[in-house]
Amino acid sequence: MTLTNPHNLRIDIDGLMARLMQLGQDGALEGGGVCRLALSDADKAGRDRVTGWMRALGLEVSIDHIGNMIGVRAGQENLAPVMIGSHIDTVATGGLYDGNLGVLAGLEIIAALNAAGVQTRRPIAVAAFTNEEGARFAPDMMGSAVDRGSLEIGAALAAADADGLTVGEELARIGYRGPAEPGHITPHCFFELHVEQGPVLEEAGFEIGAVTGVQGISWMEYVIEGVSNHAGTTPMRLRRDAGHAAAVIAVEARQIAAKLGGDQVATVGVCALDPGLVNVIARRARITVDLRNTDEALLRRAEAMMAEVVRETAAREQVTITGRRLARFEPVAFDPGMIGLVHDIAAADGRKVMRMPSGAGHDAQMFAPHCPTGMVFVPSKGGISHNIREHTDPEQLQAGADVLMQAVLAKAEETEARS
Amino acid sequence: MTLTNPHNLRIDIDGLMARLMQLGQDGALEGGGVCRLALSDADKAGRDRVTGWMRALGLEVSIDHIGNMIGVRAGQENLAPVMIGSHIDTVATGGLYDGNLGVLAGLEIIAALNAAGVQTRRPIAVAAFTNEEGARFAPDMMGSAVDRGSLEIGAALAAADADGLTVGEELARIGYRGPAEPGHITPHCFFELHVEQGPVLEEAGFEIGAVTGVQGISWMEYVIEGVSNHAGTTPMRLRRDAGHAAAVIAVEARQIAAKLGGDQVATVGVCALDPGLVNVIARRARITVDLRNTDEALLRRAEAMMAEVVRETAAREQVTITGRRLARFEPVAFDPGMIGLVHDIAAADGRKVMRMPSGAGHDAQMFAPHCPTGMVFVPSKGGISHNIREHTDPEQLQAGADVLMQAVLAKAEETEARS
Repeated sequence: MTLTNPHNLRIDIDGLMARLMQLGQDGALEGGGVCRLALSDADKAGRDRVTGWMRALGLEVSIDHIGNMIGVRAGQENLAPVMIGSHIDTVATGGLYDGNLGVLAGLEIIAALNAAGVQTRRPIAVAAFTNEEGARFAPDMMGSAVDRGSLEIGAALAAADADGLTVGEELARIGYRGPAEPGHITPHCFFELHVEQGPVLEEAGFEIGAVTGVQGISWMEYVIEGVSNHAGTTPMRLRRDAGHAAAVIAVEARQIAAKLGGDQVATVGVCALDPGLVNVIARRARITVDLRNTDEALLRRAEAMMAEVVRETAAREQVTITGRRLARFEPVAFDPGMIGLVHDIAAADGRKVMRMPSGAGHDAQMFAPHCPTGMVFVPSKGGISHNIREHTDPEQLQAGADVLMQAVLAKAEETEARS
Repeated sequence: MTLTNPHNLRIDIDGLMARLMQLGQDGALEGGGVCRLALSDADKAGRDRVTGWMRALGLEVSIDHIGNMIGVRAGQENLAPVMIGSHIDTVATGGLYDGNLGVLAGLEIIAALNAAGVQTRRPIAVAAFTNEEGARFAPDMMGSAVDRGSLEIGAALAAADADGLTVGEELARIGYRGPAEPGHITPHCFFELHVEQGPVLEEAGFEIGAVTGVQGISWMEYVIEGVSNHAGTTPMRLRRDAGHAAAVIAVEARQIAAKLGGDQVATVGVCALDPGLVNVIARRARITVDLRNTDEALLRRAEAMMAEVVRETAAREQVTITGRRLARFEPVAFDPGMIGLVHDIAAADGRKVMRMPSGAGHDAQMFAPHCPTGMVFVPSKGGISHNIREHTDPEQLQAGADVLMQAVLAKAEETEARS
């Protein structure tokens, strides 16, 4: 029984804003922003609030062994649900939107369907996954990784924070070590609405990003060992300057990104010199190189170019350079049908929409290998995220949530998987 | 009355080594080396030892208001003395030779003259100046600067260490705030024997450096302000990366030294990124640039080139760079007559000797504007100094001390200043 044409449905932006602001009270920081680290007291408060909302909206709520919270709205038929998911944990100085938007927009979609009396063929599930940020416990995307079986539950429960407290202990302490089996719901498809966390949409003047996938990530740490000496008495030709080698590698990293072009990015975010004195040639330097590309072959090319730079620099500067891989993820490609669906719905709704990759990791990437998966991006003001100044205008949030709702409704009428 | 031909005199290397080792017990570190920071308890012990040796050698000892210790051996005539001086304070992880050699070789020369019954026309003074290193109190070369009037005594006494203790308080505490007026002795000429603290003599296979002067020093700190952003989501063209700008400046500093050639050196010893995370573009970087040259005009040229690099980098990378001058000393030229004297005595003694500048600052430079001044360098193994592994072979120490003694004896016979 459909009382309203679902294609005219809009989410209630006032309702969404109210939920965002109320959830923002759990772990609120002086001066704005939120600290809601995974499994903290603030996280418990946010979880209680979100599960309360789920139940108030009539959803069937399950909590699994890793604390993932999934609320399901029944469909007309007993089919695999369309899942909307993200997370409500934050970094230590987080904003109101990262993660929260994806969960609360899901709830607001349920509210809109309830209010309009819309029945969908398939169930709709709204999921909040544990510890997406990885700010307190490693690895990040923990809950969605356990849900999809790419992280073993025992390893996840044993992960400890800096104080030695484990995920399992902290889940039990806050009452969210639930009875459900992780992955007990196999979704028909998966959607995530998220703030971009970058400047691309704003800079290009677009409202919606139809996310094509997640960049592959290659993190290396290089420890450079040279010889410490007096900055005045050591001729240039006799130096083995670890600091200089670090600077050369950092400049070359930028060159590699320029040579490869496209989506390739390269960042040297850590550079520490020892002893770090104005008049002493550094004996030791530690730098990190973060390389990302949406194309695995190009990412490997960047890694090979970087390795060659490191070899050449070590030989020329007569220093020893030891590399250590800190992280490596292959790029994730989202389902072309899902990308097209998001794009076409946004365009039909009169939104300026662009296909774009995600530079950051998201829960959605854990679902991509298992079911048709797509993401909707809305702009981040100034590209700022993981920061209390994170901001997206309400109209932009509405646009994203409306596109998400229409995409969900379209998929919820499918009788079998197609993409 | 001369009992021995002074030209055949040699210092007693066993005596010099014994003094070096004994003084090395005051503030000795586990595993070798010394921590004898200025005006510490260890410095007091070293001072007591050195003034005890001065008195045992028959010297007239004076302690001035800044704690400089000067022992004078009378001459046949009441003329201005030939002064030998250096320091006995060390850095926190210092070696046995830096500074100490210059003072203790002076004492060993006195011992040799005493043993041989040599009377000189002019008095010979051996001075140990307070806080040459500047490792605890700024500025460095404090005692010699006060002695020669380039630093006001009140300012020196008020200088405080990291704990807020002042030079004046600490001098009084250890009993070395003496009654003599700083500068009460105006020397005929000044000599300092010192370890090179660099690799040049060893690398070239020379035994003695006839020091031509001290490099001019220009220290700048640059604080680079960019915009912190996500390393994955921020396209290269939209970055304002303070860390990248720092790396560019560090690489360009090396280029400036290469372009100017000669004695020009350039060092970036400090590079700190904020927030310093692998996946975050740095919002802020702090680096230092240490430029040195023996030629003031070339040093200014290097500074101008550096300033241009900073301007260009700020514009290209869209960052703000604020420079702050940390130190600036013009090059010091030693007296040509003194340089020639050291060179010729070493050559006549069969030593491989080269004229060379000092890359480090020394007490001698405070005397250069006021009286004929010269320095003798002996090799530093591996160019290592300010390090517990600082080492010079006993034969090399003997060679340097013998050259110093012959130069002192030559000057001590002069009836009036000439150079």
